[in-house]
Amino acid sequence: MSIIEPSKSLVKVPDIRDIRAAAKRIARHATVTPLLESLTLNELVGGRVLVKAENLQQTGSFKFRGAVNRLMQLTEEERSGGVVAYSSGNHAQALALAARLFDTTAVIVMPTDAPRVKVAKTLAYGGEVVFYDRYKDDRAAVGIRLAAERGLTLVPPYDDPYVMAGQGTVGLEVARQAAEMGAKIDALLVCCSGGGLTAGCALAMEADSPSTAIYSVEPEGFDDTARSLVARERVANVPGPTSVCDAVLVDKPGELTFPVNLRLLAGGLAVSDAEALDAVALAYDELKIVVEPGGAVGLAAVLSRKLDCRGKTVAVVCSGGNVDADVFKSIIDRVASHEA
Amino acid sequence: MSIIEPSKSLVKVPDIRDIRAAAKRIARHATVTPLLESLTLNELVGGRVLVKAENLQQTGSFKFRGAVNRLMQLTEEERSGGVVAYSSGNHAQALALAARLFDTTAVIVMPTDAPRVKVAKTLAYGGEVVFYDRYKDDRAAVGIRLAAERGLTLVPPYDDPYVMAGQGTVGLEVARQAAEMGAKIDALLVCCSGGGLTAGCALAMEADSPSTAIYSVEPEGFDDTARSLVARERVANVPGPTSVCDAVLVDKPGELTFPVNLRLLAGGLAVSDAEALDAVALAYDELKIVVEPGGAVGLAAVLSRKLDCRGKTVAVVCSGGNVDADVFKSIIDRVASHEA
Repeated sequence: MSIIEPSKSLVKVPDIRDIRAAAKRIARHATVTPLLESLTLNELVGGRVLVKAENLQQTGSFKFRGAVNRLMQLTEEERSGGVVAYSSGNHAQALALAARLFDTTAVIVMPTDAPRVKVAKTLAYGGEVVFYDRYKDDRAAVGIRLAAERGLTLVPPYDDPYVMAGQGTVGLEVARQAAEMGAKIDALLVCCSGGGLTAGCALAMEADSPSTAIYSVEPEGFDDTARSLVARERVANVPGPTSVCDAVLVDKPGELTFPVNLRLLAGGLAVSDAEALDAVALAYDELKIVVEPGGAVGLAAVLSRKLDCRGKTVAVVCSGGNVDADVFKSIIDRVASHEA
Repeated sequence: MSIIEPSKSLVKVPDIRDIRAAAKRIARHATVTPLLESLTLNELVGGRVLVKAENLQQTGSFKFRGAVNRLMQLTEEERSGGVVAYSSGNHAQALALAARLFDTTAVIVMPTDAPRVKVAKTLAYGGEVVFYDRYKDDRAAVGIRLAAERGLTLVPPYDDPYVMAGQGTVGLEVARQAAEMGAKIDALLVCCSGGGLTAGCALAMEADSPSTAIYSVEPEGFDDTARSLVARERVANVPGPTSVCDAVLVDKPGELTFPVNLRLLAGGLAVSDAEALDAVALAYDELKIVVEPGGAVGLAAVLSRKLDCRGKTVAVVCSGGNVDADVFKSIIDRVASHEA
């Protein structure tokens, strides 16, 4: 059985037609997530903040869009052979559920220190989990080896045109929903790891909201995209730091995603873990949504004034909501103290 | 200064035109909340469940709709005098924020045992809070006395045609959003206290989705509407029981709301506190939303099979998300144990 690696066989970057096609394709399965606005949040930042709540997506993150778009384009041979992916947990859950929807199987290579909720749900959706050591093993190599050994099709988390196009449907929705609300978006802040969501959204906004400035947002110490944008080439993070934002920790920007982000982004921002946790607490308290730390870095950038939102309309993507209960409880304590 | 009591001077029950007018009126201020669907939840109940997430409304509950609709129709004399309301907390917050938006002041009569978050936020929105003893005082009497003494306009929590019409906009949205999703709703479950939301939604569905069966859902021991529907007249709860569902504990159905509910409801359901808490936990874990216990009784009725949803499409209103952090933390523990 042949090894099929979509990111290598199709090195083409998706364009707006691919994103619009993806939107039509996934419409029956994915949720059109709301673009939320809170009068309290607006008052707090002195501008208009529109929150794209992708934590309310199926499997609790935007990753479901790309997974469905990719799996709907498997050949019959690929589908019958099953898929494999490496993921810290959100791509894992998305692919596991999508695989079940399309009658195939998914093997997921996950770090041993992945949040328990992400492992538990990947298993509950029917995925097979293979663990690797985040600090010693090369997850891509593990995935490629499994693909070769078991005849599986590799579905990369971001360096794949179908996956990027699927994630870009978030941007299409933001542009359309903002227009329906009578809002003209000055800036869009996107949580950034490998850059698939950021690049997809940037391509969508280029077409449907070209005056919007796009910013990547990353955790401090993992701001490879921000630094790569400055260097104008892909630079890796310095090993050492840790972060509670498990969903957005990659070594360096993607091969396919970075050229798009270099061309279209206005800049890259970074926030501390404390700022991300404050944003999770505010999302719980004011927006009544459950956001995971990595999914809240965009909102954190707004709240911590990494971008001055005064007098502006700023959209932020809250990209996921899969957080361990004990972590979420400790974050809520930040709110509990205010109520006392 | 004269005492103005809208529920007495305007005893007319609203009709569908009043609800459509309310929808237009409040559109600039209220959120069009999403109608969420989770593939996991569908699988769990063996049907299609559509969750109207009114916890994502401004001030964290549907009450903002009715408050805005009422306040936008104050006379200049009423507006300059300020408003007063009695509320366990959600109507309180809604009215406090709405009052600030329309440049007036709100005095809220709240029980001494109201959730701390509800008191804190009512104050934060600029409301003045006057406490009463839930077990000794008549809150309506306290409100009416304050209205008389201070020349305030009373805004009742449900027995008011403008308030009912505002809450009915939830039903308009459910009908439209379901149609957009290609869903025909077999049943709509509405959290029920005084019955304003239930009656408003029932009137909206009568017009826009007439084949939908409407059910009220209440906590056990506070199922006055369910029993009144059987008795075909308003009967009160037997004193004694307590419940964690603070948002939906009234003594008996409303004077204006009950005739509507008697004419339009298919029946009334009741759930235990444990069932409500399980529903809050599921909403956190699968839907990634923060729902308060009283706001989750509709979802609880689905999960506990008080209504058999197999093969059906059932919409449920999650009416609010204002829950004390310590309570929410203890509810999350129900999920944490699953992850371990």
